[in-house]
Formats: sequence, C-alpha cells, structure tokens
Amino acid sequence: MVGGGQLARMTHQAAIALGQTLSVLSVGPDESAARVTPDVTLGSHLDFEALEAFASSCDVLTFDHEHVPGEFINRLAQAGHEVHPGAEALIFAQDKLQMRQRLAQLGIPSPRWSKIASVAQLEQFAGDRWPVVLKAARGGYDGKGVWIIEHPAAAAEVVDQCVKEGIELLVEERVVLRRELAAVVARSKFGQVAAWPVVETLQQDGICVEVIAPAPQLPPALAVQATELAISLADHLGVTGVLAVELFEVDGPDGVSILVNELAMRPHNSAHWTIDGSVTSQFEQHLRAVLDYPLGATTARARWTVMANVLGGEPGGTPLDERVHHLMARWPQVKIHLYGKQVRPGRKIGHVTITGADLSSLRTSARAAAQYLSDGQLPESSGAADRSRNEVERSRG
Amino acid sequence: MVGGGQLARMTHQAAIALGQTLSVLSVGPDESAARVTPDVTLGSHLDFEALEAFASSCDVLTFDHEHVPGEFINRLAQAGHEVHPGAEALIFAQDKLQMRQRLAQLGIPSPRWSKIASVAQLEQFAGDRWPVVLKAARGGYDGKGVWIIEHPAAAAEVVDQCVKEGIELLVEERVVLRRELAAVVARSKFGQVAAWPVVETLQQDGICVEVIAPAPQLPPALAVQATELAISLADHLGVTGVLAVELFEVDGPDGVSILVNELAMRPHNSAHWTIDGSVTSQFEQHLRAVLDYPLGATTARARWTVMANVLGGEPGGTPLDERVHHLMARWPQVKIHLYGKQVRPGRKIGHVTITGADLSSLRTSARAAAQYLSDGQLPESSGAADRSRNEVERSRG
Repeated sequence: MVGGGQLARMTHQAAIALGQTLSVLSVGPDESAARVTPDVTLGSHLDFEALEAFASSCDVLTFDHEHVPGEFINRLAQAGHEVHPGAEALIFAQDKLQMRQRLAQLGIPSPRWSKIASVAQLEQFAGDRWPVVLKAARGGYDGKGVWIIEHPAAAAEVVDQCVKEGIELLVEERVVLRRELAAVVARSKFGQVAAWPVVETLQQDGICVEVIAPAPQLPPALAVQATELAISLADHLGVTGVLAVELFEVDGPDGVSILVNELAMRPHNSAHWTIDGSVTSQFEQHLRAVLDYPLGATTARARWTVMANVLGGEPGGTPLDERVHHLMARWPQVKIHLYGKQVRPGRKIGHVTITGADLSSLRTSARAAAQYLSDGQLPESSGAADRSRNEVERSRG
Repeated sequence: MVGGGQLARMTHQAAIALGQTLSVLSVGPDESAARVTPDVTLGSHLDFEALEAFASSCDVLTFDHEHVPGEFINRLAQAGHEVHPGAEALIFAQDKLQMRQRLAQLGIPSPRWSKIASVAQLEQFAGDRWPVVLKAARGGYDGKGVWIIEHPAAAAEVVDQCVKEGIELLVEERVVLRRELAAVVARSKFGQVAAWPVVETLQQDGICVEVIAPAPQLPPALAVQATELAISLADHLGVTGVLAVELFEVDGPDGVSILVNELAMRPHNSAHWTIDGSVTSQFEQHLRAVLDYPLGATTARARWTVMANVLGGEPGGTPLDERVHHLMARWPQVKIHLYGKQVRPGRKIGHVTITGADLSSLRTSARAAAQYLSDGQLPESSGAADRSRNEVERSRG
C-alpha cells in the first residue's frame, strides 16, 4: 500500500487475519501504518524510482490516498506491475473536473457545474444565485481546495492564483442540503461488486465528524437508487477496490433525491463503521478486491452503528492516555481506534464506534466519547466523566 | 509479549486499535506474530538474559504461552519489571499438581485425583475403576503429557521415565463427560473482572476443534456457577490477564454439575470466537487487563457464534491460497483467521468464525469451511465446493 496513514494501518489489521503482511511505502518511520507493520519502505509516492522499487517487492500495489500521479501509475502498469485501482479509474477520484464530465456522460445526477478560468465566467455561471462553490479540480481533501464564494470579488484572489499555477477550476451551485449520505461499495478485479448499507455522514468545517449506519429514515427507493448508482459507477469507471460515493440528499421537484458530491477510491472515513458494524470491514474488502479474492458479506452486525471521528484538540490538558482510561471506564461498549499519530488541532487521530438498538443513545455516547478523547471535555448534556472516575476510585478504595 | 505464536499475532491486531505496538520476543523471524509486528526481538523465553533485555524495552511483559520458568518471572519482577500474570498466579497454569492442590483448598470441584510416584500408587488410586488418566504435572498442552491408562502395566513405561526425569505425576479418575465447557474471564491489575458467556468446546484427539458460544442448553444456574467459579479463581489466584477455566459437564448425584479440568492464563483457543462474536475480544481484553485499563464490554454480538479450528492437512492437494478463494466464494459470511504458519499435519494454522441465529446451519458451515481449508475436502453432507467453483467460473464467462 502506497502511503502510511491510518487507512494503511487499519488495512494491515485486516491483512493479518487473511494471513497476509501489508507492505507500506511511507514518507517517514513514524507514520500511522509504519508503526505497526514490519515491512515498511521509506520513500515518497511522488518519487517514481521509489514507487517502482516498492512495486517490485509487492504482488499487488494499492493506495492509502489519491495523490500518486496517474502518469506514474500508468508507467508501473506498463512495466507489468499489478496496480489497483488503475490510473484510468483513479483519475475520477483525483480530478473533480474529469469526474463531473464523466458523470454527465453517464447521466448520473450532479449539482449544476461548469469549468471556469476567470471571475467573469464564475459570475456568468452564478447569475443571481450566490453563493457558489469554487473547487480546484485537483489536490483537495477534507474541505481543502473548496471555497464558498459569496460575491465575485471574493473569488478574484483564488482564481488568479490557480490560473497562474495552472490549476484547473470548476464552479458548482451551492446545493441546499437535507443532509449528506455515502454509498460505499467494493469491486474486485474479477468484477464482483458488494455494497454496504447507505450511511448518513455529518460534517463540521468540511471534515466528517459522525457517520450513522444505515442512514436513518432513508426512503427504501432512494437507498436502492444510491446503491445502484455506486455499483454502476464502480463498473463503468472500472474501479478495483473500495469506491465511496459521497452524496447530497436534496429536496427536488419530484420529492427527495440525490446528487453526487465526490468520489474516493480507497477505504474511506464514511465506512470506518464497518470494522465493528459489518461482517466484512471495508479494509478486508479492499484487500479481497485488489488481491482478487471473492468479496465478503456486507451484512450489518447490529441495527445501528454510529462512528465518530476523534480530532486532535488543543495542546495541554489531560494526557491522551488518561482520557483513554476514563473513556473505557465510562463507555465499556465503545470501540476505540487510535491511529498512533502526533496530535495536532483538528487532525484525525482516531475514531470511536458503538453498535446497538437505540440510535439516540448511541449517538450521544459516540459523540461524547469522541469529544472526550479529543479535548478531555464532555458535551454539556452527556453526564459526568468525573462521576465515573469517582466511582472507579471508590471501588478501588 | 513473550512468544511469537498466533496468540501474540492476534494480540497485535488488537493492540493496533488501542494505539499500541506489540513488541514480541520470538524464537525465530518466521513465527506467526513476528511476521506482522515491527518490534520483534529474536530470543528464547528460556534464556534469562534475553528475557531481561526484552523486558527492559517494554512497559509491561505478558505471555503468549505458559513455558517461561516461574523463577525467571520472579527475578524479572524483583528487578522492577511489570510482569502479568505474575509467577505466583501462573504456577497454577504451569503445574497441574499445584493447581489441583490449590483448587482443593478453595473447595472448587475437581475430578478425584492423587499425586503418584509409582505404578503401585496408581493401582491403589484406581482400585477397580479403569481406565484412569495419568498426567505429567508440567509441560503438557493439546493433549500432550496426558495418558489414558487402561491397566497397570500400561503405565509402567511412562511412570518409570517420568520418575527418572524428575517429572511429577498425578492421576485422575476418568470422568464420564456430558461435554466440555469453558468459562473465560479477564482480570485487570486494578482487580476488575469481566466474563464472557460460558462456551461449549469440542475436542478431537485432545485438540480443540470447535467452540459454540454460548454453550447450547446450558442450565442458567450452571452458567452462573461456572462464571462465578472462574471469577472467584481469577481473584483468589491473583490472575492478571485472561484466565480460561476448562470444565467438564458431568451427571452428578444431584443433577448436572461441573468439574474443573485445566487452567490457562493467556488468551485461549476457547475464546477465539470473541474476535468476531463479542464487543471486546479476548486479545483486546488481555491488553486492557495487563496494561491496567478498564475492561471492555463482553456482550455477544449475535445469538450464536461458532468457531472451528483449521488444522494443517497432509501435504499436497489444492494449494492453501486456492482453498481460501473457494472458501470465500462458498461462505461469504465466514470470517477467516490465518496464522501465517508453516502447514504441518494436525498443527493449528488458523480458525474460522461465523455468527448468526440458526445454530445448526452455523455449525455445518463452520466445520465445512474449516475442513475445506484444512484438506481441500468437504464433509459428505455439506454440498459441493466444485459446484461453487463452477458457479464462479460460469459467472466469469
């Protein structure tokens, strides 16, 4: 796996059960995955020689992120290396403009969009419907490379900068959302596709903070449509591995409908819940898909699974390890997944998951546990970590 | 963790989620755990200097097996190393004679037993109730070091050999079993104890081949008794980590009752089902216990979980990797756990797990999948791997 982040880390966990050892190409020895797998090669995914040497040591090459240049992937494939997903599929997760063009060809519903190269073109697209969403075609993630533009002047600096640097731009209508959804599937080299239930994702400042599986009160017809859309995309784009289709749920003229927001071709945050909530996790499924094994069952293990991301908090306060202690005492049902990463404010350093039958209490616990790990504080309403601590102390006494 | 077997391998999987990296002292670089964790020290658990150097590099020392001499463990503890479980607890998993003596003191039901040092003493114990079970006090596992003795002459050679080598012996009545059970608990350094449901274990030639969780049709009062017995033992023996209490279910004068067969103080085969079937696996729980974190919930994730061991088959036949392919195609619900070990006939090389509501079909699938991985054959009644293969081939065409 190219990239040593948390996705590679969790893929290694899944690889162990399959009798495999994940090799990782990591930019440093302290990356999340490099800390837990024995077969680490240090090197950059932007260095073709490093990539090629690494590929030569592996049976199959796959990715923890989408930042490997397509040209490099093509050269590796031409040299006879098995690379999944291939460059011709991955381009649609790397380049938002190519993605929009391809979705349009396939008749898949998207927000209204246009390629632009000047503020004048952006103004023309917007007409009198401001704000609009300006996007760099490449390089963005977690809300980076995306700007909400309230009026033409606000776009001038970004557009000038991008045009100067040769970065292509597109503009999209700002969709009035009901909520965000994600349809995640995996497609094997053989062509088998398996889909998990459609989930609801909740964002804060462009970063996913919570996922509910399955999406509550999703009309069954819409769930089927979203799943079929993702399966069809995986097929048409020739994806091998996990494909996450981020969706907007919107009120349309004919009732509730969906629009495609973004694509990702790798294990994705919106499916971290599958580790604890599904018979087959997205990490195991990605391995099965790229190694060309038959895919595993995607059945949910519980009525509801809620995943909440743990974001790095401000420095200081209760040490992380002490927070872990309190979390475990307070929420013995919560599953903790820490990524072994240096804490920086806002950085994803782990996630928590909880499964069960009562969605409201699961959401309360997941959010409180994640926030507590993040900054040592509890949301107002969720009760007292101190009380839990005192109870533990009493039972010790 | 001292020892590089599959227990350490699966403990490393659990450690990753907790943000930890498991260090392993392994006798060779190709041991099961050494293949998947970056922090491997090569050395023997019987070499005190290797043990001490390894302990110095770890926060807490624990074990993948029970073969570290108690004297070494005591010396490490005296030198200030955190070692869990400690020698004073582990002795009861290492020495069957000390275990029987301690259980007797605690009033815990055991088969009738006696220490012996001659065939005459064995004859005296047996009276006219043959066969009896002769056991070496130390060094046995998976049925090794245990002999069913049909008549006095049959014991002569073993008794002579053991007496000559200074190996202590005990004899036990041969219990007429209804079946075997296991009560598995974990106890943290802090003293918190958590118990999983009591399971049924099925043995073949002294090796566990199948585990059903929870034990079907176990009278609730007996389940409570077995669980309380295990909790009480963990407390009285001062165990830190997982304690597995292997039990005989027998017909007694007052109805069905239980007797203690053996103890293990480490993650145990009878609780492998917890990886897929319980909110907290025994491997995560062992880590929480020895690192002194609060313990996780032991709630079952499904009505039934069935685990079947995969034993190495005879050399030749379908390659293992091809068997894995067919297994995945035939049983997408089955979870595979391979240990990355060289295949030798009868050696545990992995296990499979399946969860659900219909016990009979779960057992059929688990046993068939395990046997298929083992020797490429299916049990007579379980349907056709060939059919599955043909279906895959057809869908490919």
